[in-house]
Amino acid sequence: MHNRSRRDFSSDNITGVAPQILAAIAAASDGTVHSYGADPHSDALRHRANALFERPVTILPVATGTAANAIALSVLARPYQGIYCPASAHVNTDECAAPEFFSGGAKLLGLPSADGKLVPGQLSEAVAFARSMGVHHVEPAAVTLSQATEWGTIYTLAELRALCGEAHALGLRVHMDGARFANAIARLGCTAAEATWKIGVDALSFGATKNGALAAEAIVVFDAALAGELEYRRKRSGHLWSKHRFLSAQLSAYLEGDLWLAHGRQSNAMADRLLAGLAGVPGSQCLQSVDANEIFIRLPEAVIARLRAAGFEFYDWPPPAGSDGPVVRLVTSFDMVEADVDAFVAVARQTAG
Amino acid sequence: MHNRSRRDFSSDNITGVAPQILAAIAAASDGTVHSYGADPHSDALRHRANALFERPVTILPVATGTAANAIALSVLARPYQGIYCPASAHVNTDECAAPEFFSGGAKLLGLPSADGKLVPGQLSEAVAFARSMGVHHVEPAAVTLSQATEWGTIYTLAELRALCGEAHALGLRVHMDGARFANAIARLGCTAAEATWKIGVDALSFGATKNGALAAEAIVVFDAALAGELEYRRKRSGHLWSKHRFLSAQLSAYLEGDLWLAHGRQSNAMADRLLAGLAGVPGSQCLQSVDANEIFIRLPEAVIARLRAAGFEFYDWPPPAGSDGPVVRLVTSFDMVEADVDAFVAVARQTAG
Amino acid sequence: MHNRSRRDFSSDNITGVAPQILAAIAAASDGTVHSYGADPHSDALRHRANALFERPVTILPVATGTAANAIALSVLARPYQGIYCPASAHVNTDECAAPEFFSGGAKLLGLPSADGKLVPGQLSEAVAFARSMGVHHVEPAAVTLSQATEWGTIYTLAELRALCGEAHALGLRVHMDGARFANAIARLGCTAAEATWKIGVDALSFGATKNGALAAEAIVVFDAALAGELEYRRKRSGHLWSKHRFLSAQLSAYLEGDLWLAHGRQSNAMADRLLAGLAGVPGSQCLQSVDANEIFIRLPEAVIARLRAAGFEFYDWPPPAGSDGPVVRLVTSFDMVEADVDAFVAVARQTAG
Amino acid sequence: MHNRSRRDFSSDNITGVAPQILAAIAAASDGTVHSYGADPHSDALRHRANALFERPVTILPVATGTAANAIALSVLARPYQGIYCPASAHVNTDECAAPEFFSGGAKLLGLPSADGKLVPGQLSEAVAFARSMGVHHVEPAAVTLSQATEWGTIYTLAELRALCGEAHALGLRVHMDGARFANAIARLGCTAAEATWKIGVDALSFGATKNGALAAEAIVVFDAALAGELEYRRKRSGHLWSKHRFLSAQLSAYLEGDLWLAHGRQSNAMADRLLAGLAGVPGSQCLQSVDANEIFIRLPEAVIARLRAAGFEFYDWPPPAGSDGPVVRLVTSFDMVEADVDAFVAVARQTAG
Repeated sequence: MHNRSRRDFSSDNITGVAPQILAAIAAASDGTVHSYGADPHSDALRHRANALFERPVTILPVATGTAANAIALSVLARPYQGIYCPASAHVNTDECAAPEFFSGGAKLLGLPSADGKLVPGQLSEAVAFARSMGVHHVEPAAVTLSQATEWGTIYTLAELRALCGEAHALGLRVHMDGARFANAIARLGCTAAEATWKIGVDALSFGATKNGALAAEAIVVFDAALAGELEYRRKRSGHLWSKHRFLSAQLSAYLEGDLWLAHGRQSNAMADRLLAGLAGVPGSQCLQSVDANEIFIRLPEAVIARLRAAGFEFYDWPPPAGSDGPVVRLVTSFDMVEADVDAFVAVARQTAG
Repeated sequence: MHNRSRRDFSSDNITGVAPQILAAIAAASDGTVHSYGADPHSDALRHRANALFERPVTILPVATGTAANAIALSVLARPYQGIYCPASAHVNTDECAAPEFFSGGAKLLGLPSADGKLVPGQLSEAVAFARSMGVHHVEPAAVTLSQATEWGTIYTLAELRALCGEAHALGLRVHMDGARFANAIARLGCTAAEATWKIGVDALSFGATKNGALAAEAIVVFDAALAGELEYRRKRSGHLWSKHRFLSAQLSAYLEGDLWLAHGRQSNAMADRLLAGLAGVPGSQCLQSVDANEIFIRLPEAVIARLRAAGFEFYDWPPPAGSDGPVVRLVTSFDMVEADVDAFVAVARQTAG
Repeated sequence: MHNRSRRDFSSDNITGVAPQILAAIAAASDGTVHSYGADPHSDALRHRANALFERPVTILPVATGTAANAIALSVLARPYQGIYCPASAHVNTDECAAPEFFSGGAKLLGLPSADGKLVPGQLSEAVAFARSMGVHHVEPAAVTLSQATEWGTIYTLAELRALCGEAHALGLRVHMDGARFANAIARLGCTAAEATWKIGVDALSFGATKNGALAAEAIVVFDAALAGELEYRRKRSGHLWSKHRFLSAQLSAYLEGDLWLAHGRQSNAMADRLLAGLAGVPGSQCLQSVDANEIFIRLPEAVIARLRAAGFEFYDWPPPAGSDGPVVRLVTSFDMVEADVDAFVAVARQTAG
Repeated sequence: MHNRSRRDFSSDNITGVAPQILAAIAAASDGTVHSYGADPHSDALRHRANALFERPVTILPVATGTAANAIALSVLARPYQGIYCPASAHVNTDECAAPEFFSGGAKLLGLPSADGKLVPGQLSEAVAFARSMGVHHVEPAAVTLSQATEWGTIYTLAELRALCGEAHALGLRVHMDGARFANAIARLGCTAAEATWKIGVDALSFGATKNGALAAEAIVVFDAALAGELEYRRKRSGHLWSKHRFLSAQLSAYLEGDLWLAHGRQSNAMADRLLAGLAGVPGSQCLQSVDANEIFIRLPEAVIARLRAAGFEFYDWPPPAGSDGPVVRLVTSFDMVEADVDAFVAVARQTAG
């Protein structure tokens, strides 16, 4: 897709569109079809989604992850209710209060987490406190978990099952922010069903944009009773496309032949390779388990400077409280190849020499 | 773009993507670029927009017309304020209360209009009443005008200038819903600047989707002080694409070589041809001036039945109060050719014979 | 309560507090009690409300009618839904878009009505249209009826039963704006139960402020499942008083010994007397049925001028479309006596002489 | 006001109404006056407020502190903006997301604080981070400070001046939650002006309910340009009373002869006396500086049990993280006398003996 070396490790949203998805868009453009989702491409997507999740599901494509998360959360929590999340969750830190907007003012309640994951007991403690406050505190309604997390970590199925069980016992519904769901499933080696509704996830933001689509994410819910409200909320927030076929066609191509999983595996593999390569750099220290396609790593300043001089791009990251030294975030993606990673590692090591 | 005759006259949003725009999307996909609009495609679009409007403007692409309208209106009216519009305006009847949602509960105040256009004096009377009510009535803040309107009519520049002048004298700001702006400009034979800021329009929803794009509309404002708020509101409503280049590339291709105007002219010409052809159908009666690409016409029931039997698609439309007989809406679009129209007319006339 | 003649006929909200209610406030102030409604005064009110409505009800006092209406409506309609009302309804014209605010942007859908009342069939037609539009139109959810209406008219029980039946058959819930509920019950001669839940009303704003309280209205709902949401919404909108006893004490005193009904009867009787007195004024023409305590009447300009010169206060009212001559609104209230009315009539008649 | 010993130390909102304020309400009830604030009582309050603050101010009475805070904040921050506060602030923890509701979804950004007060530098650091995130983070707009705080501490004027200066330099506006403003001013020994606009406070919630009123707080702003928006927002949230005189009369009586300050001094003196008395209880440890009328104190379990057995009421409080032993909150108020405090201390000491 590109004919120059891939030196940008700043994010996975800097990528273009996978050729299979571009081709699907072009193919879908032929002829007239009914608008707003009453078209054969959207029918096909619904069938694919049912197959993927091994049961009938409600799937609503939208163009952005922020929209998917915020619309999904808005049907899980009323305006006077609260949504728990790790304090570092993307919905809490990077979406400009979109969940507050879509929900009509529900409150995101950030819980402490060093690695982006909640642990058993956190929800119970928080809900007990909330309920002791009565109407003065928002009413607990939902929890949102990221899979993979903003720290590049991935919940095991056992961890998720425990959290979903705790949430349901507390009367909370569970949303999963799957902007990098493909990375998680590729790593876990399970099915999409096993990672979601079979262990208690009520609603999923199924990401595709970072992993090869042009602009496509899907809201997937497993309770058909939510479908009507979702449809109205999507329309009223301007996220129902008139030429809906072009959202559906992207997602169908993404699922076709498990392209999404192949991309997730490639992205993860490049992160593994990069991590292995950087392990040999003196002074490097990885801050989180590298489960998906993100590496948060402490590197010597000289190494960072040399990499940037060589044209590599990546973000500085705030170091954890009480720790020293510069930290950077490195993100791999579906369109990276071994040579891209190796070029980075080579400069990093050479610098250290 | 399609190899079968075009028998669907139900809307202009049933169309595919113009080949020039598809090609631009594919070209933009090559390589990595920064996300969220800091890319060369978006820079290029900003330059093109400045050229189109003959001055620096703020342009924010989004994927849908509902988003463009609702975001634009949300910066023109606070939640305790009111927005005037013809009662038949798309924002009032077809967007599931999106303006109310984005604005945080501002009130759309529908004024009567038989042809989708406001006339001088309506705003003055409505604002005088509102102000007599003090805080019990929402505070008048803005007016939104559709160009072309939902009834397929087009304001003359003189009409617009008078309305904008009246609005400004009343302290209202003016938004233009230009979902079919290309049809209007093609008909008026003026420039985009002459039809907007030069006569007092403060914000424009510049439509492209109905006229050849995949999913692209642009919010254009002429007061740079609004830019920051617009950026935040776009992000928080989930309408900022991470792969922003793909919105910009669509719009750039749409403007390139005045493709948008060529499409508008073709669409209008097909409506003119269709109108002329149907004039010969006994019992037909056109209900509105056909200024753009929509025809609202009373046709004999037998004609309607024959057309549908021949595979033509179009919507029944509620007849005006107090009138008889079935009314249909016929919409032409950029991708129709004379043979498509002639086929429709032939069946309509044959029926009548 | 006042030692000068009562010459202000502009509204019933210009009145002071009934002495029984003032005394109840003073009595309730003695000693400490738990805050936020966990006090004996609030318990007593709940018992009184159950007795009044002949069944267990949920009652939440608030300080204003706008709050009562808007909170009640916000539990009956989600933000993407619609609430039908006569276009002239107070919630639609006089509350600065409070229902839109509290509901998070639900749309008030005003239906035409010359006398402030809906008639059978209006809801069915409107809902059928809404449903034909799918997600592009807000989803029909509720209807709000004023009893008495803004035009001083009162629904008969048969009329209400028919409307509630139609609403329920359409899946709508019914709210009643009872800012002047006492006037209605006093006129209808039925019980509060017979005028509400027994004929299908789901939620009631039970007014007291205009009829003798300091600042007290009650939200009453007949479906206990709504209680929790109401409590949260009241708190979050700042309408839960910490010294809640002072709302409850007002309402208890208002109900005690049917003070509310006595006030309603007095207010109605003064309107009847005023109407009878004005019937003898040449050129006078009453525009609406005087069912409660409001008279909308056309009077000769000279009469109006003479009344104002004599110190009487009242509002000019916009005449109905297509009609001539000045119209005024005259409002009576619980604290008026025959001499107040007679003084007004005397000046009106003298003027005509 | 009460004839039994005052054994409830749970809050200052369990109190009745000061006799002077009750008398003012009764006096204001005489006769008819114009509604919605166009009355002589409201005029008088405006004059008193100007005198109190030594300059023209905008003052809008409402019935609750939640309403005062939320309405004030809603004019200082747009829905896509952020409001900084100590994480323990009442607006963040006890108002059921009212600020989020009134602002249309602005985000409260809680900053860590052990004693309820912010310190210099916290705002600068937080704003720098926010701005580095661009539109992905809400736009910094305001900060709200409680005076006195939820921990019963009080900012010195120097501390406030420094924080306001820092806030303004960052482009933030400053709101002060003065639910216990009287306690603060009584302790600081300065004027209301010196504690607010003279050192940079832009908007104040001036509390009266906890300190002797029935239900009255005032929104006070020092920028007249905000007045119009405030008026509309108050109406639309249902907080504009039709019988507005009864809010104004409460606040006028509260200011008359500096009743508010006398109450604040009494309340503070009772807290001082209580603190001194409890100092002699072995095992007691006060957790915060007792600047106002709240004491957070660790007491032996046996002491707590004995106090409750003797009929005293107070809340258990969560102990600070990592600390042992039960903590209680004791609140004094304007209507307490020395004998009330001494009775509490006697039981506490006796227990320890």
